[in-house]
Amino acid sequence: MSFVPYDENCDFPLENLPYGIFSTNEDPKPRIGVAIGNEVLDVKAVSHLFEGQLREKKHVFSEETLNSFMEQGKTFWKETRKTLQMLLSAGNPTLQGELRKKVFHPQSSVKMHLPAHIGDYTDFYSSIHHATNVGIMFRGPENALMPNWKHIPVGYHGRSSSVVLSGTPIKRPLGQTVPIEGAGPIFGPSRLMDFELEVAFFVGGPPTKLGEPVSINNAEDHIFGFVLMNDWSARDIQKWEYVPLGPFLAKNLGTSISPWVVTVDALQNFKVPNYEQNPTPLPYLQHSDPFNFNINLKVDLKNESSTTTICKSNYRYLYWTAKQQLTHHTVTGCNLRPGDLMASGTISGETPDSFGSMLELSWKGTKPIQLADGSIRKFLQDNDEVIISGYCQGNGYRVGFGTCTGKLLPARSE
Amino acid sequence: MSFVPYDENCDFPLENLPYGIFSTNEDPKPRIGVAIGNEVLDVKAVSHLFEGQLREKKHVFSEETLNSFMEQGKTFWKETRKTLQMLLSAGNPTLQGELRKKVFHPQSSVKMHLPAHIGDYTDFYSSIHHATNVGIMFRGPENALMPNWKHIPVGYHGRSSSVVLSGTPIKRPLGQTVPIEGAGPIFGPSRLMDFELEVAFFVGGPPTKLGEPVSINNAEDHIFGFVLMNDWSARDIQKWEYVPLGPFLAKNLGTSISPWVVTVDALQNFKVPNYEQNPTPLPYLQHSDPFNFNINLKVDLKNESSTTTICKSNYRYLYWTAKQQLTHHTVTGCNLRPGDLMASGTISGETPDSFGSMLELSWKGTKPIQLADGSIRKFLQDNDEVIISGYCQGNGYRVGFGTCTGKLLPARSE
Repeated sequence: MSFVPYDENCDFPLENLPYGIFSTNEDPKPRIGVAIGNEVLDVKAVSHLFEGQLREKKHVFSEETLNSFMEQGKTFWKETRKTLQMLLSAGNPTLQGELRKKVFHPQSSVKMHLPAHIGDYTDFYSSIHHATNVGIMFRGPENALMPNWKHIPVGYHGRSSSVVLSGTPIKRPLGQTVPIEGAGPIFGPSRLMDFELEVAFFVGGPPTKLGEPVSINNAEDHIFGFVLMNDWSARDIQKWEYVPLGPFLAKNLGTSISPWVVTVDALQNFKVPNYEQNPTPLPYLQHSDPFNFNINLKVDLKNESSTTTICKSNYRYLYWTAKQQLTHHTVTGCNLRPGDLMASGTISGETPDSFGSMLELSWKGTKPIQLADGSIRKFLQDNDEVIISGYCQGNGYRVGFGTCTGKLLPARSE
Repeated sequence: MSFVPYDENCDFPLENLPYGIFSTNEDPKPRIGVAIGNEVLDVKAVSHLFEGQLREKKHVFSEETLNSFMEQGKTFWKETRKTLQMLLSAGNPTLQGELRKKVFHPQSSVKMHLPAHIGDYTDFYSSIHHATNVGIMFRGPENALMPNWKHIPVGYHGRSSSVVLSGTPIKRPLGQTVPIEGAGPIFGPSRLMDFELEVAFFVGGPPTKLGEPVSINNAEDHIFGFVLMNDWSARDIQKWEYVPLGPFLAKNLGTSISPWVVTVDALQNFKVPNYEQNPTPLPYLQHSDPFNFNINLKVDLKNESSTTTICKSNYRYLYWTAKQQLTHHTVTGCNLRPGDLMASGTISGETPDSFGSMLELSWKGTKPIQLADGSIRKFLQDNDEVIISGYCQGNGYRVGFGTCTGKLLPARSE
């Protein structure tokens, strides 16, 4: 129990302690914070209380991003978590006196920033239901999954400059599309704007060297923690551009992430068996320990007059684990840097109400979905706000991710 | 004329003045240098001589990368170039006295570093001969070019962490391949290692904002300068992984660039007409001013007993200009940061001796090429060194790029 008050549906109890970067009106310099209840603990402001290795590397807590902290590795992360849990527990008076007002801020009063400088951002394609749905829509049920899909965690390099924090509005993009099959391309606003429900992890640990892969047994050492992600997608632009080199402009118009990074340690109690893999992957990708998590995911669509839950999914539906994604990413020698971001790909479940994109929910526009105010949607309309949320349900508490939100603004005039 | 001696075949005359980052044994801190003859002028060490806006922003010349300098924009770059040309000219005594020994270093004695922190690296696919060759090999002559190819400068996001400086050895990667068509994948060393002859440009100017494209008329303001590139490629890994999301691990095992960034100003005298585009691209991609360059490109393959020129190509063969690449990249709203790197894709000419990859030179292994020592190659063998060089020929001088080299080391033991 913490002395900071919260109820059992709060995303940020003592069991969670996600890290983020925040600033305040009084002190606009971004710094590391930890979410607890509806408040933020200023980690920098309490770092003088740290001991041992944390004290030795106190500078890590004075950085404007989490990169240095991410770089320190598992032992350091665990020690920090332990220290913060101790400082925040009801029985510890340290922060309950004079410091109570000085080192805590209401979450509603702070400005959040991107948690890390993202050196490289990679997006995987690891939900079997999503890949199957997309395959059926575009190639028919016989060849729904590509021959490589069950052998490699398929992924591609994304654009790191356009990863933005939750709350950042996204403009409907203009680009090239082919609205009439067989006709020439035209330039104009995308007509098929979509969200993608994803969860991404930040890479931690020291930078690795080019040519030195991370084995599956060491992969967990390089996984710091998780955030929610909305991988905004312009489907009509994507369709025209993506053969043969993959998605490009359809995806780099903005990728939103939630501000609080939930650590692997905070997710330990919510491990579930890995998705059964058949055929067995090649040995370099095999691990039998569970590294799958029961994270309830939800997408709400908010328009001017209503908010509608349009998708309920779960992280556990992923076919490939984060450990497999990371190991595969490095197997040819690609080097990692702390702060790299690796996303799951759209997370869809088996049932239509668990599909993680408008493309699937409206089945390519053939089955429009109805919102609470009676209006219908095939794809996103201007001023629609997409709100992704997620949490793990414990016994009398939650480990939550908060929200990842973004509003689609009208396209700029041409 | 400069007081620094060089002959007419030197890559780095007064007309060139490319920028790089170097350090010395005596002073291991990386700093900005300019190549002149066989020497490097320490720009930081002479920045106290600068005047006007250069003096006001002198801190730019004390950075450990070119990013801040790149950010300043065209007027600042031109002013710097003018100042350096003045300081290096034969008639100017300033650097010919006491400073001659202090601020110059032999190129052979310095250590070069990556010119910039590369936020994002993008690879285009802009050579029509290369795209056609690859298309014929994999899809036959009827459908060689994809329907989108002549409408959009096709490209994809690459991995920035694995961009390395010329001279860095590259290990033959291990990965998944399908050596027997229709059989399952195996894990092991790539058997089809290749180079790709490319030229890349660094983005300059202030960072742009998400949602605010760079128009074709403003594109040149964001192009700082060019380097040679070898986009190492594992063809067998690429073939198995790249559908539907594009090349991934086949490319992130290492991408080599040359250390000296040749500015757009230094290339002005070598402009040639743009490649004729038919059909005319959409208006947002149209520009009539030439932004194509006559850069002679060469690839040498050095094995233990010989060095063989295996390719002579030219930058002018590119169908899409760098301005079109950059404008297209931002049209859906993707933001740019100074130091971003955008590469041309393999630059192949029309004739077989101008093809810019082993894949094309050996026509998928069906036409092995012969080296000077009599040995043959379909793809690269262990310990082969690939040496890319390039220059523009002026009247009695050259504006050269130096070399981009890399040796392929044997795969690590599994």
